[in-house]
Amino acid sequence: MHAIRDKDRLLARVKRIAGQVAAIERALSEEADCSLTLQQVAAARGAISGLMEEIMAQHLREHVAGPDLADADRAARAEEVIALLHRYGR
Amino acid sequence: MHAIRDKDRLLARVKRIAGQVAAIERALSEEADCSLTLQQVAAARGAISGLMEEIMAQHLREHVAGPDLADADRAARAEEVIALLHRYGR
Amino acid sequence: MHAIRDKDRLLARVKRIAGQVAAIERALSEEADCSLTLQQVAAARGAISGLMEEIMAQHLREHVAGPDLADADRAARAEEVIALLHRYGR
Amino acid sequence: MHAIRDKDRLLARVKRIAGQVAAIERALSEEADCSLTLQQVAAARGAISGLMEEIMAQHLREHVAGPDLADADRAARAEEVIALLHRYGR
Repeated sequence: MHAIRDKDRLLARVKRIAGQVAAIERALSEEADCSLTLQQVAAARGAISGLMEEIMAQHLREHVAGPDLADADRAARAEEVIALLHRYGR
Repeated sequence: MHAIRDKDRLLARVKRIAGQVAAIERALSEEADCSLTLQQVAAARGAISGLMEEIMAQHLREHVAGPDLADADRAARAEEVIALLHRYGR
Repeated sequence: MHAIRDKDRLLARVKRIAGQVAAIERALSEEADCSLTLQQVAAARGAISGLMEEIMAQHLREHVAGPDLADADRAARAEEVIALLHRYGR
Repeated sequence: MHAIRDKDRLLARVKRIAGQVAAIERALSEEADCSLTLQQVAAARGAISGLMEEIMAQHLREHVAGPDLADADRAARAEEVIALLHRYGR
């Protein structure tokens, strides 16, 4: 475990995404217009991308580039980021 | 309103995404390892991309390319898809 | 073959991308700073995304949603777009 | 300037992308079928994404997580990566 900076703000961000997903579920069950539902899905995807970037930024700052880290830890964390970018960038 | 094909399967898909988002919230509140949380976020983003594609495919098949649609309706729906792609593709 | 609208403008757009790729090649061969090279690559990727969207928009307007198209042709073209979105959206 | 690992392989990769872009230019000038041209553009975009990832991976390994780097340099490079991810991830 390790402390997460701005934890409350990140949690609020995730709760908003949960609300967006719940709204998509309602739109589908109420058979709303496809275009409106697609806009909601695109917005939720954008929100998750933003969350991803914020957590990735913290991770890079503190667990890859932070001071007083063992070289081996840095290298291992950098490989984790690289693997994530491969998956996330496609 | 218009009927949504495979509604139950789409709803099941959205519920899974809701579960993934709830898991991200737990991981953040429990201050789990950043890399694991990032993998969960990347997975949720992939799931939302998949949902987006499936709804987009239905929309294209039935409301843009479907038979017996008025030309004006097709054109309007095509513009909606184009606007979504601009937002989604960036 | 079919006529491409704004052909000259699209060709100018592709030529610019070719120039960006040539600049990336120079940056790598001259061993420029990674960050600057990465910015050039990100810019070229953005430019190709923009080109993709413009051609996709034309294709949707004229070959999927255009008037006077046979239903079978529309359906086939819509499937092509759907397959491209699957590949491109990931 | 700094040495780039696998420089020849990266250069070969960029030359292939240049070839893909030249093929797109030919397809547009010869007014080839939109779908085929779109597939070429999607492939070029995928190739540029791959190049981006490879250069990013080297940058992270050597200039952010590498041993014997000054803390301030690491932090500055990490911020560059974060800015790139914001631009690239959207």
